[in-house]
Amino acid sequence: MGGEGVKHIVLAKFKDDVSEEKINEFIKNYSDLVNLIEPLKAFQWGTELSASNMDQGFSHVFESSFESVQGLNEFVSDSHHIAFGKSYASIFDKLVIFDYNPTIISYPN
Amino acid sequence: MGGEGVKHIVLAKFKDDVSEEKINEFIKNYSDLVNLIEPLKAFQWGTELSASNMDQGFSHVFESSFESVQGLNEFVSDSHHIAFGKSYASIFDKLVIFDYNPTIISYPN
Repeated sequence: MGGEGVKHIVLAKFKDDVSEEKINEFIKNYSDLVNLIEPLKAFQWGTELSASNMDQGFSHVFESSFESVQGLNEFVSDSHHIAFGKSYASIFDKLVIFDYNPTIISYPN
Repeated sequence: MGGEGVKHIVLAKFKDDVSEEKINEFIKNYSDLVNLIEPLKAFQWGTELSASNMDQGFSHVFESSFESVQGLNEFVSDSHHIAFGKSYASIFDKLVIFDYNPTIISYPN
């Protein structure tokens, strides 16, 4: 059981006084980590479409992909990632960070 | 901007008295929706690897993929999905449901 690689999901709710410009800068710098940290193989993000009204106030999701837990650990401890995290630590109202090794189901199963 | 399709993420924390057998049955029935609901194109799930200690108690993630918001809406209102949701409504301590259209960043960006 278990698919390939490791996914690192970040759900974010920004503080009310954080500007859209600041959020866009955060997204740009987060995206740029793909160019700076080799084990980070792919990155995607998006905003809540609010189809279900069960988002608990989270407005943005960020998903990073790695080949292995080792790759994730290298990312987490990379100096670029640490500096990035520190520079934006104060902009969040709340965060959930969730790492998993996906089990992939496709039709027919 | 915006990639293809729509992702439907569910983060779950089960109540303490929910058995592992019940959780496995939930996962099996969730996975089986891929065979029952045509707009549900792919499904994956996993458990928290706890690399960051910022999971807020969430233990499981489930990610469903659709081609469009319309496909997501068809899934949400499908009778199989509704019956599935009702039969497990009482097993959660908390849930976050988050829908998004991913913007995909890959190296070099």
